[in-house]
Amino acid sequence: MEKYALGIDIGGTTVKMGLFSQDGRLLDKWEIPVRLENKGAGILPDVAESLLSKMREKGIKTENLAGIGAGIPGAVDKAGNLVGGAVNLGWEPFNIPKVLRTYIEVPVKAVNDANAAAFGEMWQGGGKGYDNLVMVTLGTGVGGGIIVDGSLLVGAFGGGGEIGHIHIDDQETECCGCKNKGCLEQYASATGVVRLAQQRLKQDDAPSLLRRGELTAKSVFDAVKAKDSVALEVAERFGSYLGKGLANVANVVNPEIFVIGGGMSQAGEILLSFVEPEFQKYVFPACREVVFTLAKLGNDAGIYGAAGLLLNG
Amino acid sequence: MEKYALGIDIGGTTVKMGLFSQDGRLLDKWEIPVRLENKGAGILPDVAESLLSKMREKGIKTENLAGIGAGIPGAVDKAGNLVGGAVNLGWEPFNIPKVLRTYIEVPVKAVNDANAAAFGEMWQGGGKGYDNLVMVTLGTGVGGGIIVDGSLLVGAFGGGGEIGHIHIDDQETECCGCKNKGCLEQYASATGVVRLAQQRLKQDDAPSLLRRGELTAKSVFDAVKAKDSVALEVAERFGSYLGKGLANVANVVNPEIFVIGGGMSQAGEILLSFVEPEFQKYVFPACREVVFTLAKLGNDAGIYGAAGLLLNG
Repeated sequence: MEKYALGIDIGGTTVKMGLFSQDGRLLDKWEIPVRLENKGAGILPDVAESLLSKMREKGIKTENLAGIGAGIPGAVDKAGNLVGGAVNLGWEPFNIPKVLRTYIEVPVKAVNDANAAAFGEMWQGGGKGYDNLVMVTLGTGVGGGIIVDGSLLVGAFGGGGEIGHIHIDDQETECCGCKNKGCLEQYASATGVVRLAQQRLKQDDAPSLLRRGELTAKSVFDAVKAKDSVALEVAERFGSYLGKGLANVANVVNPEIFVIGGGMSQAGEILLSFVEPEFQKYVFPACREVVFTLAKLGNDAGIYGAAGLLLNG
Repeated sequence: MEKYALGIDIGGTTVKMGLFSQDGRLLDKWEIPVRLENKGAGILPDVAESLLSKMREKGIKTENLAGIGAGIPGAVDKAGNLVGGAVNLGWEPFNIPKVLRTYIEVPVKAVNDANAAAFGEMWQGGGKGYDNLVMVTLGTGVGGGIIVDGSLLVGAFGGGGEIGHIHIDDQETECCGCKNKGCLEQYASATGVVRLAQQRLKQDDAPSLLRRGELTAKSVFDAVKAKDSVALEVAERFGSYLGKGLANVANVVNPEIFVIGGGMSQAGEILLSFVEPEFQKYVFPACREVVFTLAKLGNDAGIYGAAGLLLNG
């Protein structure tokens, strides 16, 4: 009997959901808003209702379901425990599969959302064909997910792949969201690039496209494409930080491929051109042979990975 | 039928060898010198002859052997290829099991020596009972080995766990052996600690035990134990570098335990007291829960791990 898998990706504003065939085709996708009130107590009931409604619509019974995979914005250990809660959802620590199974009695696998995205990109995206992969998600923050020999590196307490908080600069005076100073996220996230641009613009009065309109990571890389020399300096600093950070990651796990995703990766191949040379400058020779590529699944990486981990993880 | 395993650990001056029971008891150990002439061509024939002679002495036939595990001072991939050669032995790249099996026809598993030591400490040493472990070997250099869910993290090209070459200081002006500047090894190895001590002693004329006799990593930690304030400053700088470096490793792989070995670990628990607080300063909250412990197997970690990987890897 052909079975189906459901992949869900719970974010701060929406829950993305997908219905997958066992061989990894996305048959349908949809999303629902996230209700944050009452410490997010309504989120999982809403998810369950939406999934059950979709199953009714498609005539899928629980015995046709291989199960549900769930990507969660927080550290999740191998048993599905949300170890430190999920700040963005208002959730305290609890066992996710246990609660979700009170609504739908099928196998449930819960993982960190960045880890899910990494597995998704390996399963059906930019990292297809590789089984030692590091995915880097450059969005508001810097997220990471690591695959070793085809398996997700979850870590002892679900903290595997937290590469956004690698310490990278001893001179930093401002605090990261995690309260440390000098985390990779402070330079290589979309927010970080804007910060680097602001710092550069303050230095002097050099003319730049970045002085007009809203300053965003996108506007920085658009200006780079227009050969704006100030933007170029900002991109080089971004590349130096990220290249150095990823060299440290490569020295630890020696991946075959880095998949770069998240909103900032929409800048395209040009983004990689700032990172790779810096990476090569810092990496240990035995870890030098790495492919850099862009993510392919965009915002669907999480639902792909959640379903993929349920089916193959 | 009870079987045996042989563990060998090839270093720059001697090859250590051990005969193990299947349940991990070291039944006998011995060593032979390493002949470096002729690009180390005699090393494996010497090893094979010594192993065969031991087997004859003990009345062990090849059918009583589960196989041979070999720790090699170089990057070794999953197939046993010595990817970049072994500089200290004069060896070019080749497939180690293939060659060793021309002398003794049993299963052969070859791994990097620091990785072998990590597996050994997990199997029968300081990390027994844990299956997410990072071992750090503080000797002439800084070596590393990573165990994820009970399996060795070899990496795509055998470069997994090369934590000695994590970039940790942008201000460094001297080169590391790998030709980069600012590698962890430049501060946290025995050589690195001596360098830090020399730098400190040059700064002023403050009286210190370190100004008498030979300056070694051991003399630095002996002086720390004697409450020498200059040595204390050196140990604090060492601890800051190593703590920061291990925080970066923890953010990537989220281990349960760090096992600290190598010659420098003979300084004892006091060494950990300089590292742990600095680690806690830099690590991401989800990766904070880690035990720090000293290695237990000393110079035998390599033969334990090589045999252990053959039997259980």
